[in-house]
Amino acid sequence: MTIATELARRIRAFTYDGLPDAALEWAKTGILDTVGVTLAGSAEPCAQIMLRVCTATGPALVFGSAQRLSVTDAALVNGTASHALDFDDCSNTLGGHPSVPILPGLFALADAMPVSGRDFLAAYVAGFETETRIARAVNFHHYDKGWHPTATLGIFGATAAASRLLELTQDQTATALAIAASFSSGLKANFGTMTKPLHVGHCARNGVMAAMLARAGMTASHDVFEHRQGFFNVFNGAGNYDADAVLRDWAEPLDIITPGIAIKSYPCCGSTHPAIDAMLDLVRAHRLTPENVAHVVSWTHPRRLAHTNRPSLRSALDAKFSVQYCLARALVDGQVVLSHFNDDAYLDARVADVMARIEAAPHPQMSSAGTAHFGAEVTVTTTDGRRLVKVVDSALGRTSEQPLPRFALEAKYRDCAGRVLTADAVDRSLDLVADMETLDRASVLADTLAAGCACDQAGGPAALARAS
Amino acid sequence: MTIATELARRIRAFTYDGLPDAALEWAKTGILDTVGVTLAGSAEPCAQIMLRVCTATGPALVFGSAQRLSVTDAALVNGTASHALDFDDCSNTLGGHPSVPILPGLFALADAMPVSGRDFLAAYVAGFETETRIARAVNFHHYDKGWHPTATLGIFGATAAASRLLELTQDQTATALAIAASFSSGLKANFGTMTKPLHVGHCARNGVMAAMLARAGMTASHDVFEHRQGFFNVFNGAGNYDADAVLRDWAEPLDIITPGIAIKSYPCCGSTHPAIDAMLDLVRAHRLTPENVAHVVSWTHPRRLAHTNRPSLRSALDAKFSVQYCLARALVDGQVVLSHFNDDAYLDARVADVMARIEAAPHPQMSSAGTAHFGAEVTVTTTDGRRLVKVVDSALGRTSEQPLPRFALEAKYRDCAGRVLTADAVDRSLDLVADMETLDRASVLADTLAAGCACDQAGGPAALARAS
Repeated sequence: MTIATELARRIRAFTYDGLPDAALEWAKTGILDTVGVTLAGSAEPCAQIMLRVCTATGPALVFGSAQRLSVTDAALVNGTASHALDFDDCSNTLGGHPSVPILPGLFALADAMPVSGRDFLAAYVAGFETETRIARAVNFHHYDKGWHPTATLGIFGATAAASRLLELTQDQTATALAIAASFSSGLKANFGTMTKPLHVGHCARNGVMAAMLARAGMTASHDVFEHRQGFFNVFNGAGNYDADAVLRDWAEPLDIITPGIAIKSYPCCGSTHPAIDAMLDLVRAHRLTPENVAHVVSWTHPRRLAHTNRPSLRSALDAKFSVQYCLARALVDGQVVLSHFNDDAYLDARVADVMARIEAAPHPQMSSAGTAHFGAEVTVTTTDGRRLVKVVDSALGRTSEQPLPRFALEAKYRDCAGRVLTADAVDRSLDLVADMETLDRASVLADTLAAGCACDQAGGPAALARAS
Repeated sequence: MTIATELARRIRAFTYDGLPDAALEWAKTGILDTVGVTLAGSAEPCAQIMLRVCTATGPALVFGSAQRLSVTDAALVNGTASHALDFDDCSNTLGGHPSVPILPGLFALADAMPVSGRDFLAAYVAGFETETRIARAVNFHHYDKGWHPTATLGIFGATAAASRLLELTQDQTATALAIAASFSSGLKANFGTMTKPLHVGHCARNGVMAAMLARAGMTASHDVFEHRQGFFNVFNGAGNYDADAVLRDWAEPLDIITPGIAIKSYPCCGSTHPAIDAMLDLVRAHRLTPENVAHVVSWTHPRRLAHTNRPSLRSALDAKFSVQYCLARALVDGQVVLSHFNDDAYLDARVADVMARIEAAPHPQMSSAGTAHFGAEVTVTTTDGRRLVKVVDSALGRTSEQPLPRFALEAKYRDCAGRVLTADAVDRSLDLVADMETLDRASVLADTLAAGCACDQAGGPAALARAS
């Protein structure tokens, strides 16, 4: 027995009927969130660039359009779109984004063959467990060294999920994982460029490809993880991994349940999120408006403040990292959504007026190195002299113990999907994901996205129509 | 200036007119040899498996067939075929095979756009110089660690060559190289399986993709090589590379000239080659036949003998590593060619009869660790009592200082190409490569291969026709 063959046995053991209720709920949360951010990301330049290069027609939908490409090209394009905004879900185990490597390949395959909603869900959870267990063996040395785990480890999730959906044998699944080890790639040096989301598309495409190749008869070394010149030794190096961690405590509990999926609530830097949570809570509780607020102080950990203290803005990207801007938006609009970071939105005069009243400061109780740094305290002084305080220990959705409320998850989805879908299609797709286990064909979701996209006259991608 | 931007400037400086005569000759040698082994490899199982998965139609020829695929799919399929037999050219600088990462992408692009033979040659030499200079910075730590340099470094040759052929700007070329760093992958743990040639196909496809993406507007970090979390630090690690070696002595001389390309003469393990050279020399000089030879002793270095001393055979793969079998073939057939390793050819009774008279032994003067291990000595005792001796220091073609004679290069090409082409197409393609600098469209070569392939009635790939 090798690690790959035993992983293959366990991957094949995933079935819908074997999923705990909590896994099912989290899977549907991950799917909804990933569909939303992929639709929103489809309008971004990196996704549009992929469409200029990926032109092999086929059965698989390009999200945000009615265009259909080959399975591998669709996985590549949608995978890139899914990470374009860096707004997709997170895993502390992976040190990255767990769903975007997996789901673009599953959606593409589901467009090409009969796949039930139940099989889709089981394949996704199998992929999630595989990539996060391999992560336990190599993190966080792997992460710190400079690999991009969403891609270098996500490839195993993508491959496992595709292998399960294609119903590969144990031998074929082990071969697919071994091929995936030779496809694993992605350097952090390319962070801050479009190649970061490209890593995800490349990984999603390669995972599907590895499974398809294994099915077609390709051979590979089943000892690829533990081999002297295999994945662990070459990527991490001797002494920098724990091979036993891959199989230890497998699925007890499933990683998708604990520690689970973290969902980002706002399309801006995560270090601003707890302060936004606090501000929105005060706005709602006290009916705050730009007219009745005199002064705001945002207290956060110095480590977080360092890159979010931006009282004046030079670009939309600056706005994404400005806690002053984000809190001003929370007060002016009662929410922080994608459109606030479009083009020249950051120049809004009403927001600039409020920003002048917002101060950002290091929290006096968070100043030492050892303190928790996920919280925020916001103090609002109203024009009639009241002093309102809200303390948040960590942003909503950051851990599965403190999940995003359903209304907030849906609001995020509506904001994201609404970028490219009609309102009716947004509603219908929400319902389809909520009832995914009842779908005879998982592809009805893609069909709904295709039919409901705000396409141009020629039926081309909405993203391209918007850009032109 | 970063390494990538300076590399980009130098890659763009390659032109046909700037190539020394020796580079032109070596380039044509590399192209002829690669076309030959790709045609021969197209009939192998790994190449046929790729064709089941890569189905996006387009302008680019699948070698060994009349089928046309998209540029990226053709690069993937042909790249895999080119390394299927491990019979392709070698570079001591690269620690691998220098031409197979580059040429499949160039052929695919040349089928899709107007490319002259001269531009094709310049792009190939640019790619060769780029991958081997990066190799100087990271080898042989890179090789020893477990990376597969043909793929992990070849990706830069593939990308540089495609960028040059596509006439990318300096900025785009640097971006393409930076994307390539995030595509670089391939583990030695998969050696001995079909995934080894797949590495080459994957790399050839990814190199073309990186160039196409850069042209389409993708962005990436131009400091990707020297970045703290970039190619050198992540793949090799601090202290295990010499970044300055990339640009030092660039093109003085071109690596394709010195140390140049090594060509494999025989489709079997390289450790048997010097003994085959010696045996064939004796056979030709003394008109040896199975009838007039009583006994043969092959003396080689113990390190080489360890895996080539195979007096009895259980498989065709065994035959590839058996010095006894290879020398018997040299005596029986006067040559060692592809068909000797087909299917049950190793069971040939005439050969088995001769093998019983062949002894393999460690060379007494090569027994210590420090001695050269590339040579062989063969002693033949004839039935009339003569004792004939031939000593070879290293196999013909192993270095560019001792190149394969033209007749031997052509004989190898005829053997390889003859597997799938008509005799007329073999002749025509030989002439086209010899006159490559005169071609207005490099694609006439592919057109000749397509028209001359021994296709089945439906026009499908010869490889598949043979397999069915």
